[in-house]
Amino acid sequence: MRNRLGFQRFSSPCATWLRPLIGCLLWFSMFAMAADPPLALVIHGGAGTILKENMTEAGEKAYRDSLQQALEHGMRLLQEGKDSVEVVAAVIVLMEDSPLYNAGKGSVLTHQGTFSLDASIMTGHDLQAGCVAGVATVKNPILLARAVLDHSPHVFLSGSGAEAFAASVGLETVDPQWFRTERRVREWQKARAKEAPAATSVKPKKFGTVGVVALDRKGNLCAGTSTGGITNKKFGRIGDSPIIGAGTYADNQTCGVSATGQGEYFIRAHVAADIAARIGYRGDSLQQAADAVIQTKLTEMGGSGGVIVLDRQGEAAFSFNTAGMYRGYYRAGEKPLVAIYRENEPQP
Amino acid sequence: MRNRLGFQRFSSPCATWLRPLIGCLLWFSMFAMAADPPLALVIHGGAGTILKENMTEAGEKAYRDSLQQALEHGMRLLQEGKDSVEVVAAVIVLMEDSPLYNAGKGSVLTHQGTFSLDASIMTGHDLQAGCVAGVATVKNPILLARAVLDHSPHVFLSGSGAEAFAASVGLETVDPQWFRTERRVREWQKARAKEAPAATSVKPKKFGTVGVVALDRKGNLCAGTSTGGITNKKFGRIGDSPIIGAGTYADNQTCGVSATGQGEYFIRAHVAADIAARIGYRGDSLQQAADAVIQTKLTEMGGSGGVIVLDRQGEAAFSFNTAGMYRGYYRAGEKPLVAIYRENEPQP
Repeated sequence: MRNRLGFQRFSSPCATWLRPLIGCLLWFSMFAMAADPPLALVIHGGAGTILKENMTEAGEKAYRDSLQQALEHGMRLLQEGKDSVEVVAAVIVLMEDSPLYNAGKGSVLTHQGTFSLDASIMTGHDLQAGCVAGVATVKNPILLARAVLDHSPHVFLSGSGAEAFAASVGLETVDPQWFRTERRVREWQKARAKEAPAATSVKPKKFGTVGVVALDRKGNLCAGTSTGGITNKKFGRIGDSPIIGAGTYADNQTCGVSATGQGEYFIRAHVAADIAARIGYRGDSLQQAADAVIQTKLTEMGGSGGVIVLDRQGEAAFSFNTAGMYRGYYRAGEKPLVAIYRENEPQP
Repeated sequence: MRNRLGFQRFSSPCATWLRPLIGCLLWFSMFAMAADPPLALVIHGGAGTILKENMTEAGEKAYRDSLQQALEHGMRLLQEGKDSVEVVAAVIVLMEDSPLYNAGKGSVLTHQGTFSLDASIMTGHDLQAGCVAGVATVKNPILLARAVLDHSPHVFLSGSGAEAFAASVGLETVDPQWFRTERRVREWQKARAKEAPAATSVKPKKFGTVGVVALDRKGNLCAGTSTGGITNKKFGRIGDSPIIGAGTYADNQTCGVSATGQGEYFIRAHVAADIAARIGYRGDSLQQAADAVIQTKLTEMGGSGGVIVLDRQGEAAFSFNTAGMYRGYYRAGEKPLVAIYRENEPQP
């Protein structure tokens, strides 16, 4: 309609040579738009009982600034033409290095007072993946997951073996004390003091896992997740974060997903892949699929947490059944959106 | 139609009192049939380049007898009224204790010449699960997976932590040498000798993982899988067997699945849950879903292996893209069926 109106302006005979030129220009711009899929990324920094009344102004600002920086860093890399796998890893490194999140520095402590970090990454164009569980000396577990994706014939490495692999590919290692923060030590002491003699609870109230899904210039999705697990975890517990189909999933045909919450429930409900399956096999929208799995299935099972979802059109969906989820959405050409609570703020 | 014909036989006046009685009997027998779902179990003992020309008569007989015994043992327990979770665990214990399979005794060796066993179990009525990875001293990893399901607030335990949990629930432990068999030591020596200096291959030709799916009197499905992994594996590698949605899945609404093959591909394709999703969301038949994932998706990705599938009606499907798969199917009231090769024998 706009094109037709545009052409009508050149109705004088002298402009006849302009018509094919303008037609060509329009055609090329449409082609360029089609060839350049929208750059986009979604991030989360965990879900839980995050309530405005319990948050200091300074605390809230720290999270908002950190999420904003992560979004801007990711978008800058996407605009430089970086592949989504590189962007996901780089943004998660930023979040792992921040003490705000339960991933990398700032991770929660196990029952023994040690650290045991999990991470995974998956690329949507070839369904390649790298997963690591139970590492304590690798500074950035997401880089180890990426190294597994790139360099290992295996997909999922664990424990001291995963650390030996990290050494073999030259990743930066740290003393486990590097991950330690006073806040997490206090949480751990509180959990140990309250502990039932027989079993530890898997019902913590906050899940500070971080996750990113990005869509790059080639139209490829990548999803990644990194976590310290849950406070006071025992017996070499592995959660959903390093598990393809539970905490992380990416397939260009459907979507990319990263999850945060009570890993036990996310494994049993295989949350990330189930969202993709509902989109792929039933034709659900992103939001329908995410809500069906989080608000209905997971909630009925008694689990809590949330997910971020991104598809190849740069459309995003967020769903969580907790009071809040640290989250952000940045689509090229639009304003980056950061949110924490369920209500009373602009929702991405 | 049969009911109407039945009633017509009692057309004399003296038989009028018989009509409601026979009606009641017919109604009760239909109710009994509906209340008693068919008992059934499917098993596998691994897939791979299993060719008749490479098999001795005695070797083939050993596998057939072992599969037959496993089926009969499972059916006996089902007929005694045991729950499917108990039956799956018991049948897998039998297979773990047999040196024929790469699970429990007879497991393959890691790069270091050690053992690192994985197992998982899932119940279809409540989507509960128990998973263990990287254990070396627990005689029956499937019993540890079941103990995780029954007694742990966590779903997935690994390494020495999982062994500490095994001790805490009083499971039988063994010296790792208990798993050692001469055949697996030779395979390991061969793999080490051929080994490329940079990386180990993940393309072994046989996958001796064992798996069982059972349907009990209550109409509940349960699936379980146990494995020694792949010969010469490195770096604390975890395969698909302990991963819900990859090597094992059970949901009464769709089906139970146990997989065997190149775990790396089975994780990336999240084989077990994808079969269930195609049945649940697209209305695929069991065989359509299994074939779409194994013959098309997995094959196009370059992976090999197979699956066994069972639904709540006691219907089974088998699909593998290898030369053979040790497998069996036993449905109450029918003959137990055991098969090894793709062709030239009765297929279950």
